[in-house]
Order: sequence, then C-alpha cells, then structure tokens
Amino acid sequence: MFDLKSYLAAKQIPINDFLQETIKKTANSGRISEAMEYSLMAGGKRIRPVLCMAACEAVNGNYKYALPAACSIEMIHTYSLIHDDLPAMDDDILRRGKLTSHVKYDEATAILAGDALLTLAFKTLSTAGLSIKGDNTAALKWLEIISFISTAAGFEGMIEGQMRDIVAEKTVLDFNQLEQIHLLKTGALIKASVLTGAILGKGTGEQLQHLEIYGKNIGLAFQVADDILNIEGDPLVMGKTAGTDNLHGKNTYPFLIGLAESKQFAEKLIARALDSMDFFGAKADPLRAIASYIIKRKQ
Amino acid sequence: MFDLKSYLAAKQIPINDFLQETIKKTANSGRISEAMEYSLMAGGKRIRPVLCMAACEAVNGNYKYALPAACSIEMIHTYSLIHDDLPAMDDDILRRGKLTSHVKYDEATAILAGDALLTLAFKTLSTAGLSIKGDNTAALKWLEIISFISTAAGFEGMIEGQMRDIVAEKTVLDFNQLEQIHLLKTGALIKASVLTGAILGKGTGEQLQHLEIYGKNIGLAFQVADDILNIEGDPLVMGKTAGTDNLHGKNTYPFLIGLAESKQFAEKLIARALDSMDFFGAKADPLRAIASYIIKRKQ
Repeated sequence: MFDLKSYLAAKQIPINDFLQETIKKTANSGRISEAMEYSLMAGGKRIRPVLCMAACEAVNGNYKYALPAACSIEMIHTYSLIHDDLPAMDDDILRRGKLTSHVKYDEATAILAGDALLTLAFKTLSTAGLSIKGDNTAALKWLEIISFISTAAGFEGMIEGQMRDIVAEKTVLDFNQLEQIHLLKTGALIKASVLTGAILGKGTGEQLQHLEIYGKNIGLAFQVADDILNIEGDPLVMGKTAGTDNLHGKNTYPFLIGLAESKQFAEKLIARALDSMDFFGAKADPLRAIASYIIKRKQ
Repeated sequence: MFDLKSYLAAKQIPINDFLQETIKKTANSGRISEAMEYSLMAGGKRIRPVLCMAACEAVNGNYKYALPAACSIEMIHTYSLIHDDLPAMDDDILRRGKLTSHVKYDEATAILAGDALLTLAFKTLSTAGLSIKGDNTAALKWLEIISFISTAAGFEGMIEGQMRDIVAEKTVLDFNQLEQIHLLKTGALIKASVLTGAILGKGTGEQLQHLEIYGKNIGLAFQVADDILNIEGDPLVMGKTAGTDNLHGKNTYPFLIGLAESKQFAEKLIARALDSMDFFGAKADPLRAIASYIIKRKQ
C-alpha cells in the first residue's frame, strides 16, 4: 500500500528548502521580501509542485531536474492566492490559518508581493535553464517550459478563468460554462504542473497524452472538491473562512447541481484520471494516490 | 541634425504593431484582453522599447531582433502603471489622458489585467527565443534576457523601489536614500531596456559598460524630470493629474533640494549620459537625442 503521507512529507522538504533559499538569495531584507516569504512559506500543501515532481518520476525522470519548475509553479499559485484574497476580489481575511497578506500588511504591499512572486517565478525558471552546462538542448527545453507555464497562468489560462468567474458572479451559468471557468481557473495550472514535470523528465508523446488526461481531470476535480469544502469544510481545519462562495453569489457545482451530484461528479473525474494511469506501472502510484486524496482532503 | 520626432514615430510603428498583434493572438476576446489592450494601446511614448531598439542599433545590431524584448518591457512598464494607479497605491484617475484601468473597469479587472500583462511579457520573451529554430546558443541568450529583465522588474529592482517609495511616504529621506529608490523604481527597467537591446545586438563588453552608464544616468534623470513635471507640468499635456506627489507626502527631488537644484541635477545626469556616448559614433545619435529629450519633455 502506497503511503501518500510519507511521500508528501518527503517531497515537501526539497520544495520548502528551494523556496526558502530562493527568497533569501538577496541582500534586500525589507518589507517586500518579508511579505513574499510570509505567504510563500505559510505551510501550503505544495500539491502543484509535488504533482510536477511525481509526473517527472512517473516517466522515469529524476525529480530534482523538475524541482525549480515545480517551485516556480508554487510561486505563481501563491501570487494568485494573494491577489484573489484582496478586498477588490474575494476579500478574504484568512488563508492557510493565517491572516491574508493585505490584512497582515496592507493592500499595496499585498499587490506588490504578488507581483514580485510572479516575477520571481520566471526568474527562477530562466536561472534553472542557464545553470545546466553542456546539454545542447536544455536551454530550448526551459524556454518551452517558460512559454508553457506563462500560457497556463496568463490571459489564456488561469487569469481568464478568474476574470470569467468574477464577471459571472450573481448570474446563473450552465454546466458547460462553469466547467470551462474551472478548467481555466484551477485546471490550467494543475495540468501545467503535471505536464511540466513530464516534459522535464523527458516523457514520450504517448506518456504526455495520458498525463494530460490525468491533469485535466484532477484539476477539475480539485475545484469541485474546493466548492464542496467551501460548504462542508471545517474552517479550523481548512485555515480559511467557509461559506464565502454563497456570500459572493459565486457559481459553484453544489449551487448548480446539488451537493450529492457534485460529489458523484468529482468521483467520476477521479475515476477517469485513474484510468489514464493504467498505461504506467507502479511509478505512477504517487499520482494515483494524489488523485484520490484530492476529493478526500479536508483542507 | 538628428530628427528625434521622426525617429520615434518610425520606431513606434513596429512596436505598436507587435503589441497589437500579440494581444490579439488569442480566441479570448473577453473583458481581460479588452482591459489589457485598453492600457497597452493607450498611446504611450514607448520610450523604453525605443531605447532598447536604439541601443541594439548603436552596437550595430538589427533592431528587429530586439523588438520582442523591447515590447515585453513595455508590457511590464504598462502593468506597473496599472497597479501603481490603483486606489491602494497612488489612487490616480487619469493616465495618458484616459481614465485609469480601475476607473474605466473596476479594481479586480485592473489587478488581473496588470497580472496578465506581466505574464504575457514572459510568454513573449520565451516565444521569441523559441522562434529561432533549434539554435541552443540563441535559446541561452534569451534565457539570459529573461533572467535579466525579471531581476530588473522584480523584488531586487522595480518592485523594491516601489515598495520603498510607499514605505517612505510622509517621512523625510536623505539624498542618497531618495537616489537609491529612484534607481530601483524607474532606473532599473530603463537601464534594462538599454542593456537588453545591446545584448541582443551582440554588443561587446566595453560597449555594454558605456551603455550601462548611459542607462543608469538617463533612468535617474527620467525620474527627476517626472518629479519636476508633477509640479510644473500641464495636466492637459501630460494626460494625468499634477501635484499628486505633494498630496501623497511623497519624497521627491524638488521637495528635498528645491526646483532649481533639481533641474541642475537632471542636467548633470544627462551630461554624464552624453559623455558615455563619446565611445560610439553617429550610431548613437538616437540615444543622445533621447537623453536630451528626457529632461525637455512636457509629458
């Protein structure tokens, strides 16, 4: 039986070390780096970077090669949380059990800390590409990764999803519209995490195809599970306020199809993700376990 | 006599074409791309991308090779303006003679449009590097440019300057502290524009050294001139509100050393920049003309 808890804990160590080192690697120890560190090291579960590294291993790659990319994605994820929590967006005061950035500091600092984390993600990716000596194709591969991640995070991906989600507040969407928003808002970066790891692990085209199906389905399931947690979750366990979606008139799966149907839908998505893993052997056990965890998690 | 007006007009055409094409190159035609386009195509003077292309030509490079990088820097500049104008920052309502993004749309859209432009800058840089087929040396150079620009724009450069500027509001700085803030806030990206163009134009180490002195001095002069314009400028010509620095208790050169001294200081900086151009021949005429323009401009 694969032990996900130990696997997550083992992978979180290099991730946290890399993030901590990257944020400290500067003479600047003022307010901006403090605010960046506050949110980046707030004890997130590191699902995206772990997915990236697990996908790298699933195609027989060495996870260390994917580590900088994995951590860059976590920086992008963290920046998006800081900006989403702002008063002009979701106006949240708690995140990961701590005060959100604009409450702990102020709005200007939170906006800048988010901007700085997004910028640092691309610096980290370019530095990783430059550090590989003697491989004639490494630079091209890292440029591809930068292009890939910036597309997933930008106005064709995550930001477009966020924008559509805000525009749709207090209107009623149909199932397809909601699915499209979630595929962009949460799905794009999760899928990118998986594929980035697989590309850096030198996965074959066929392996990438299966991992794309996996990434797409767990990304959507992640958001459905988030919607369910927003209703059923324990704020003390989640470390953030519950019930906020309803308050903001947000379109969610439970609102659209009901709680029981939403749970079934999430399970169906995870089943699809697990099917796509049949192509891989035991190397994909971590990816299987993460898929199941996504709909069972309490935070 | 070198005609700067024609030079700027001639260079603005490929810049505007490139920016317009990049922003349109997507099926997404919703609110986010509209807001990005609104600010990006608001008729800025394109000083940074022109500097980038002029520096490329000063070292005998073809400016077209630097065009994507030049435009990426303009995207970063535009995102920084959108975020700086937000209520939590400078709370400005006019920019380039038009309503600022958060007034025209709303705060959430302005935050996301800025995020999206920053992300698009790095996508544009990586796409440029990938478009040179199979050339790993070119790919390495573009990774260097990404590392260089992300450093200048991030928490070791522009964002740090912006943060220090906000922290220092309503306190009195000394001359060196103010210079340090301006070197970061405005200088870092202007210097990066010049050096990026020179690197992509395959400038020698000696050429880069001279251009670094040029970039540093015009960058600082640009901010001093901005401070003076904020007092003396005509809002109708500038397309933004005047007198706001004083209102926000901002540290500026006129506040610290007086208006007449500030003008002398700006002229001294430009003289230093012009000196550093002695190394180059007529190829640097555009850079010379831009340096002089920076302290004569009315907007």
